[in-house]
Amino acid sequence: MYLTHALHRGVRYWPDRVLTVDGDRAFTTAESAERVARLAGALHTLGVHEGDRVAIVALNTDRHHELFFGSWWAGAVANPLNTRWSAAEIVYALNDSGSKVVLVDEAFAGIVDRLRAEVDCLEAVVYVGRGEAPVGTLVYDDLVAAAEPVEDARRSGDDLAFLLYTGGTTGNAKGVMITHRSFLTSLLSYQMSGAAVRADGVTMLTGPLFHIGALLGWYAQQLLGGKLVFVPTFSPENAMRTIQEHGVTGCALVPTMIQRICEHPDFGSYDLTSLEFIGYGASATPDSLLALVMEKLPHTQLVHVYGMTETGVLTVLNGPDHRARRKLGSVGRASSVVELEIVDAEGRPVPPGTVGQIVTRGDHVMAGYWNKPEETANAMRNGWLQTGDGGYLDDEGYVWIADRLKDMIISGGENVYSAEVENVLAGHPAVASCAVIGVPDPEWGERVHAIVVLRPGQSVTIDDVRSFVKERIAGYKAPRSLSILDEMPMTGTGKVLKRELRASIAGR
Amino acid sequence: MYLTHALHRGVRYWPDRVLTVDGDRAFTTAESAERVARLAGALHTLGVHEGDRVAIVALNTDRHHELFFGSWWAGAVANPLNTRWSAAEIVYALNDSGSKVVLVDEAFAGIVDRLRAEVDCLEAVVYVGRGEAPVGTLVYDDLVAAAEPVEDARRSGDDLAFLLYTGGTTGNAKGVMITHRSFLTSLLSYQMSGAAVRADGVTMLTGPLFHIGALLGWYAQQLLGGKLVFVPTFSPENAMRTIQEHGVTGCALVPTMIQRICEHPDFGSYDLTSLEFIGYGASATPDSLLALVMEKLPHTQLVHVYGMTETGVLTVLNGPDHRARRKLGSVGRASSVVELEIVDAEGRPVPPGTVGQIVTRGDHVMAGYWNKPEETANAMRNGWLQTGDGGYLDDEGYVWIADRLKDMIISGGENVYSAEVENVLAGHPAVASCAVIGVPDPEWGERVHAIVVLRPGQSVTIDDVRSFVKERIAGYKAPRSLSILDEMPMTGTGKVLKRELRASIAGR
Repeated sequence: MYLTHALHRGVRYWPDRVLTVDGDRAFTTAESAERVARLAGALHTLGVHEGDRVAIVALNTDRHHELFFGSWWAGAVANPLNTRWSAAEIVYALNDSGSKVVLVDEAFAGIVDRLRAEVDCLEAVVYVGRGEAPVGTLVYDDLVAAAEPVEDARRSGDDLAFLLYTGGTTGNAKGVMITHRSFLTSLLSYQMSGAAVRADGVTMLTGPLFHIGALLGWYAQQLLGGKLVFVPTFSPENAMRTIQEHGVTGCALVPTMIQRICEHPDFGSYDLTSLEFIGYGASATPDSLLALVMEKLPHTQLVHVYGMTETGVLTVLNGPDHRARRKLGSVGRASSVVELEIVDAEGRPVPPGTVGQIVTRGDHVMAGYWNKPEETANAMRNGWLQTGDGGYLDDEGYVWIADRLKDMIISGGENVYSAEVENVLAGHPAVASCAVIGVPDPEWGERVHAIVVLRPGQSVTIDDVRSFVKERIAGYKAPRSLSILDEMPMTGTGKVLKRELRASIAGR
Repeated sequence: MYLTHALHRGVRYWPDRVLTVDGDRAFTTAESAERVARLAGALHTLGVHEGDRVAIVALNTDRHHELFFGSWWAGAVANPLNTRWSAAEIVYALNDSGSKVVLVDEAFAGIVDRLRAEVDCLEAVVYVGRGEAPVGTLVYDDLVAAAEPVEDARRSGDDLAFLLYTGGTTGNAKGVMITHRSFLTSLLSYQMSGAAVRADGVTMLTGPLFHIGALLGWYAQQLLGGKLVFVPTFSPENAMRTIQEHGVTGCALVPTMIQRICEHPDFGSYDLTSLEFIGYGASATPDSLLALVMEKLPHTQLVHVYGMTETGVLTVLNGPDHRARRKLGSVGRASSVVELEIVDAEGRPVPPGTVGQIVTRGDHVMAGYWNKPEETANAMRNGWLQTGDGGYLDDEGYVWIADRLKDMIISGGENVYSAEVENVLAGHPAVASCAVIGVPDPEWGERVHAIVVLRPGQSVTIDDVRSFVKERIAGYKAPRSLSILDEMPMTGTGKVLKRELRASIAGR
């Protein structure tokens, strides 16, 4: 299994179909392959050899597409970096990965000098933005135009394909090593599990291309034929306009993105009927949001995926389950060839209904963390990847996430799963979004604390919150204190930054 | 990737659903898994250890299902043998594979003594047939009932899963080594290519379970949930009755089977509307037959698969292409992650339209021939499996089979592809089935010779045949001589035995 396969296949099957669209720039499959072969030639000229890393830090663009294929074609490893990161974090990841080349766009023009000064391994900084290239950078299009195309190095199987940094917001970023085989196994296993990317569809790439979720959709659509439409950054207007203009059939979104689309005042003025499929995940999804999207987009299949960079797609909850309003709180069942268990602290499987840690093994699992044998050994025990997520199986094998183990609150000796409380609280009419954390408390050990962002013109008190939650779930799970924020702190991939909330609210 | 996964998964997801049906015998998933774990225990008791081979020679039965999983569960390799073989061929394959246990049914009761006498490696012969067990055999059900269930040995990845003997009719049978990974990769790649086995369907297993084609459908249906209905041996009545009775949604058939169903006098008296999907392949399919089946089964998607034991599914021609009557003579495009090329005698890729040998590489390819390093080296060159089939790519990447290279006729210096002539001849109204071979000829080197089986009450002359063919394709391709047979000699998997025709007609 090797990832440049999709491009060779596309050239043989549909060379003249448009493959990539980015604003007013479009390339056919044959043009794209020609550019990739030239980019690989340029990378060789810049000193990139077999196994080397090549980075990109840019908003979503067709340059990502070309860089990923170009890296593999040159025999290298693609290292797309988180665009929400600080300059220090980017410098750290580039040094840690030993990337020889980095592509930057206009948003990162301001840090080029710093990259050149602080990242010794860099042979070149290449500018993929609009407007004039910053001093000290090479111009991407000139580089591609001037280079001679080279033969595909055809790395495959256990060779590294991606280095994907996670956890960067903590200062302890780890590079997750994804091989050609692990990426393709995850993708094939997911596709076999039912409703997913379809042949000859149009996939909109609005989720960030440094994230495994967007990468799987990006690749699957090519393997099956179809068009890729790159959207630099998410906004509800961008997404709706793109869906209408290009007849988008599928995309991957995080719940907050779906909510912002469905609640947008101009929702009704766009034709979104081409949209057959939304894959969503990456954070807990309130039932109220699912009800909303099924009402607003009645023709769209919803597919929940659960997984992480280290594993690709682990579980799938398919469209039909959504329409039947069946098991909506579950993340679904393990995808077709994924092995998944719930284990206790000693690694022994627990019976259905019992919460434990979700672990998984198989060809879909990462090869380890780059240059971090200790962290790798911690994450992989006897071949099982430790997800760090708590959850349980029901009697039909559906997985229910209890919580990130580190997000579990122990209050008065009771385990409180923040995700459960958040799911209830999200249904409160005044609440636009919410998070629940544990804060130190002299009486309870930890106390349940709610953070909410209110809908326009609404207000809420801690008593309102307590009684709303207590009417629905056990009283000990109800928040005992409340913060109201204007905006929820989020990661680049749409997850609530609980660590940041804890630091600011609980002082730890 | 490991093959007992489907059973574990089934037990978790749908333990109480009926999984296997064989006549009046039915087992749920949980019952089936329990029996498999016991059978594995029994195999251990009989001396079967990690990596050992366990054989079965029987008409299709749920015992195949149990034996395959039981072998893997015990850490062993499943070795299902061709039921059309002579006793000598079966003895050869059992000795060659070193199988420790063989399961036989009533059709092979008569050779038990010979197996015991001539196969030294055998620890036990187990009887899976009806009626009284022959002397010297163990009774399958007693063995399973008496055994203690054991833990799954969970062989996986590059471990051997199947030993599948091919070419047995020639006396030079080779054991094709299929690993857990190669089997699953072929299956996932195929499923991703579109219309195929569907979730919660009912698969009828009427094609022989010693053949890779039937095995892939058998496994896919389990992984996706659903029911397996075993039919001991194919007849049009059996097939139609089973489809009606069990609401069969899919099956794999060879072209002659499809023809016999569609032309059966009782065709109209069965309800076949549940049948959504027929996968077919294994021999050339005349356009006239495809037209017939699309007319007779208007609700059924036809999917052509091309491949061989050594490779699993290589190419797929999907349902929509059939309905659009598009490229029907092609075998389709390479399945999603399969790498396929057409090469010349030196192994160099040839341009579209040029005939060469079809070669393939990737995780779907066999690990080699059992105990035959020389044959393996001949078949695998620089990682590419040499299929021995001649074919070409068109300008959309569809594969067209010219011929088995050894079946190509060179007549008067021109290459004649027997498949092309057969496709034309099959459309002759008097012809029920046909084959075309080359026979030695003093004038032409080889001359094109047709063998036909006539429809009832019809007759045909060599002049009829020549003029019918010459009206449709180049004159040098028209047969110069003709044999009329009552029945076409076929292999157990429905392929015309050209070697036998050559021996009897051309004297070689």
